[in-house]
Amino acid sequence: MHRPLEFVASHACFGGVQRYYRHASRETGLHMPFGIYLPPRALHRAPVPALLCLGDVDASEDTFASLAGAQRLASEMGLALITPDTRPRAVHLPEAANSFYLDATQAPWSRHWRMESYLVRELLPLVAAELPIDGLRLGILGHGMGGHGALMLALRHPGLFRSLSAFAPIASAASSSCGQLALGNCLGPDREAWQTYDACTLMAAQARPPYPRGILVDQGLADTWLAAQQLQPEALVAACAQVGQPLTLRRHARHDHGYHFIQSFIDDHLHHHAAALG
Amino acid sequence: MHRPLEFVASHACFGGVQRYYRHASRETGLHMPFGIYLPPRALHRAPVPALLCLGDVDASEDTFASLAGAQRLASEMGLALITPDTRPRAVHLPEAANSFYLDATQAPWSRHWRMESYLVRELLPLVAAELPIDGLRLGILGHGMGGHGALMLALRHPGLFRSLSAFAPIASAASSSCGQLALGNCLGPDREAWQTYDACTLMAAQARPPYPRGILVDQGLADTWLAAQQLQPEALVAACAQVGQPLTLRRHARHDHGYHFIQSFIDDHLHHHAAALG
Repeated sequence: MHRPLEFVASHACFGGVQRYYRHASRETGLHMPFGIYLPPRALHRAPVPALLCLGDVDASEDTFASLAGAQRLASEMGLALITPDTRPRAVHLPEAANSFYLDATQAPWSRHWRMESYLVRELLPLVAAELPIDGLRLGILGHGMGGHGALMLALRHPGLFRSLSAFAPIASAASSSCGQLALGNCLGPDREAWQTYDACTLMAAQARPPYPRGILVDQGLADTWLAAQQLQPEALVAACAQVGQPLTLRRHARHDHGYHFIQSFIDDHLHHHAAALG
Repeated sequence: MHRPLEFVASHACFGGVQRYYRHASRETGLHMPFGIYLPPRALHRAPVPALLCLGDVDASEDTFASLAGAQRLASEMGLALITPDTRPRAVHLPEAANSFYLDATQAPWSRHWRMESYLVRELLPLVAAELPIDGLRLGILGHGMGGHGALMLALRHPGLFRSLSAFAPIASAASSSCGQLALGNCLGPDREAWQTYDACTLMAAQARPPYPRGILVDQGLADTWLAAQQLQPEALVAACAQVGQPLTLRRHARHDHGYHFIQSFIDDHLHHHAAALG
């Protein structure tokens, strides 16, 4: 019997289960782990809407699942939370510690670093086929590098996600130094190619507002990544304004980049997504 | 200027702050770290009641603070959360990985392993003196080994804590194999001495119910520590019954020993403590 998902662990949580699986990935050519929170409703086999939650640099499939405090309200709302790993790990490659959720075109990264295709063409269909997830009711959320990932994937794949939010996203990967390092390694020196993965460039090129219900972004003002010019929320504001995309950007005094920040506002994000996912 | 507390880190969280400090400890003779969540009310310098939260084997001052999801409701309730480390770490000693929150009498442990005196005679007074904590309104909660710690300290120090609860506590340290190892190392081979730190023995010896408002205990039925006879909630039930101590022991199908279990029920514990702490 073919078992596409290998069970790793399951923890009862708020009437549902926080599960961990791994699977042999066609896209990355490696075993990939992921976490999924299934609310009580899903345990009765009713397909539930799901939120793809993309972690920041160094996050694993367990980070958001353990630290964000999202399961309490997700349980009530009947919302699943999918937490993939942030990069292929079963292979060591020089100088490409951060995936930026893209498909690399340059050797040696191009063989395994196919995070965009992995998420969009493999993980989401797999989860919808194997678990009680409604693949037509998906939202996407991300943190830091995962905030870039959420914005970028939501703009490159129109119609795939119904709702979009981010915590302290890297708004313009092509103009942040950490993004430039990853884009240079994975896509090569042609800076035109980098723009195809830059959330602000993608937004500014939209013919009409892609998320008419609005995008929710929270940003802490004591975030050292913000001070280091890696995040540039003002660039996202400008790009959204250019195409009339509604954006709610909330700036929070004293808050930093960590999970105590995310915890503090995660309920607002879940409400934002639930309103679109029904 | 004498600075008894050395600031380590602070993270804004639900309108309050999750802080980390360290200090030179008189009792352990070592630097000891701790975490403290201060709700918004405390930031306006109004002394707030506090809950001493004792972690399980291998927990640090950060474990409960990051994984329990307690700050959301603690913020609303105006309750501080004090999360000490679980043992002295700045010194290596053989075969005593777990402190059981006691004062060791046997060399080589007796010099530094003074967790009971550290918590009761040093950390709590220090926190009440240096931070906006009301030292007369304290509750205690613990998990696993920390559940033993909470029950044991609450029974050995009458009047210090107004409220008591535990997640999956080691109810009888002297009759669990992991407790026996620690008690043997720290107190020597005399098993009579072990009983002075055994929560069930301490409870059974009470002249009257020490916590007339009741003790709250949650236990997962898929807990591998339960199956391994380390927890023995039935012994706590018997000891409480013997002295008429009200005990609410809730058994939860499918739940294990981890923080997804704690997250799921932490709000009930905070309500339990807030009712006593005012």
